[in-house]
Amino acid sequence: MTDTVNTPSRRVYFLSNRTAITAETLGHSLLAQFPGIEFTSVTIPFVDSIEKAMRLVDRINAENEGTDMQPIVISTMADEAVSLIIHQSKALIIDPFVRFLPELETILHAHSIHESGRSHRISNQSHYESRISAIDFSLLHDDGMTTKLYDQTDIIILGVSRSGKTPTCLYLALQFGLKAANYPITEEDMESEQLPEVIRGFKGKLFGLTTNPKRLAHIREERRANSRYASIDQCRYEVKAAEQMFEQFNVPYLNTTTMSIEEIATKVVELTGLHRISKPDISHL
Amino acid sequence: MTDTVNTPSRRVYFLSNRTAITAETLGHSLLAQFPGIEFTSVTIPFVDSIEKAMRLVDRINAENEGTDMQPIVISTMADEAVSLIIHQSKALIIDPFVRFLPELETILHAHSIHESGRSHRISNQSHYESRISAIDFSLLHDDGMTTKLYDQTDIIILGVSRSGKTPTCLYLALQFGLKAANYPITEEDMESEQLPEVIRGFKGKLFGLTTNPKRLAHIREERRANSRYASIDQCRYEVKAAEQMFEQFNVPYLNTTTMSIEEIATKVVELTGLHRISKPDISHL
Repeated sequence: MTDTVNTPSRRVYFLSNRTAITAETLGHSLLAQFPGIEFTSVTIPFVDSIEKAMRLVDRINAENEGTDMQPIVISTMADEAVSLIIHQSKALIIDPFVRFLPELETILHAHSIHESGRSHRISNQSHYESRISAIDFSLLHDDGMTTKLYDQTDIIILGVSRSGKTPTCLYLALQFGLKAANYPITEEDMESEQLPEVIRGFKGKLFGLTTNPKRLAHIREERRANSRYASIDQCRYEVKAAEQMFEQFNVPYLNTTTMSIEEIATKVVELTGLHRISKPDISHL
Repeated sequence: MTDTVNTPSRRVYFLSNRTAITAETLGHSLLAQFPGIEFTSVTIPFVDSIEKAMRLVDRINAENEGTDMQPIVISTMADEAVSLIIHQSKALIIDPFVRFLPELETILHAHSIHESGRSHRISNQSHYESRISAIDFSLLHDDGMTTKLYDQTDIIILGVSRSGKTPTCLYLALQFGLKAANYPITEEDMESEQLPEVIRGFKGKLFGLTTNPKRLAHIREERRANSRYASIDQCRYEVKAAEQMFEQFNVPYLNTTTMSIEEIATKVVELTGLHRISKPDISHL
């Protein structure tokens, strides 16, 4: 509880025989449902042998000995023998494999392989490569650096400087395999009251990002302190002008002030109807 | 089963009231345990009202009517009322909230808030900003473009052209908040048999990536077909020379041939002992 001084926080371990991305993602979602409680979390990937698992159980038990707070383990172990060792720790074990695989086996009339599926990690090489080429494309088309391949782009993100264009495009490329260009709206564009000429022919692909002027000023301050660029007046002017441009030319747009990069990217895909590849080349244990 | 012609594949729905990243991540991990079965998956994020949930249940039931294959729903709904609607569908529901929150409530002596936790999505603004500045840093330091801030970098990834340096660095920045530079090993460096001068002072931060020459040739062929650059002989030479350099100068390195970007990044962090931020600024429902 936040009003108690020196409350020891509860330990949470995210474990996996591979990257632990699934354990972390699931774990953070569950723990976020308890905002009043403080957690100390540690991620331990590549627990891929019985020996490592045994050492880990000893560590977890030792680290929490003498406290009255049972630790929590979020574990996704493909290997059953390793998983069994982990289940011997004194922690509360949250294990989606143990919980969900049996009922999946029943309706699928199949046994789960209980393997980390090495051969399956890049099961679809062409998907893997399309992800890499989406990253290449998005880097090349960052910040309007080049505009020549706009006919190949899936989307062109517009916005003023520091409105979140670059991280959004990188996420779209890296996670969803989308070719995402971005183009900055400059003061010159605002004054012309026209869409920049190079993007005019791609109206169906345009998507705007906007943000709260105060937040924008704060972010710009990090980059260029005490500048006109970072001043609240300038930020107000630019945000207003960009939003007017989006409205005038029917460019769909999103206010990203309180959103994470993940949410912005997901929302952009949702609003534009783009096809999101849900990482079919890999499963992250 | 792969040997049966025209087997209809089983439908899987990843649902959430937010991004559906947790549902997708968990779902792919579970389904990867059944490599012999074909699934058709669709992700439906932002199911954030009872009306949307009801329409979705109708859709799921309709799409699978008349087949003898019960669909699968992987659902992470913070809102209990919306979740209850989803549970009325005819699908097998895999719901980690319903399964795991009760036991967490018991050991934490607290009620889960059952909210998507809007205020929690960017609960830690400074973490969010460090993530953004890690992205800025990594972009600026891509492919040796600049080397002047190497004293601030967390890691410098080395490797020959197309060995996976850029995606690895972007992932390290975007997901783990690490300032990750990368520097290409060129033929000139190989011939000199020295570490490139600009990186010599940062030996503790260097990490090499290497890959199978055949795979490298295949990837390079995409970029520059039928070139000396993409020839198998050239790739063999470069890979061997780079690996010799890593060995000679005690640069830890990793063969990434069969690894996904996520695995490479996780392994790099593991091997270097870097502090991995596990996305504490956000929980992805």
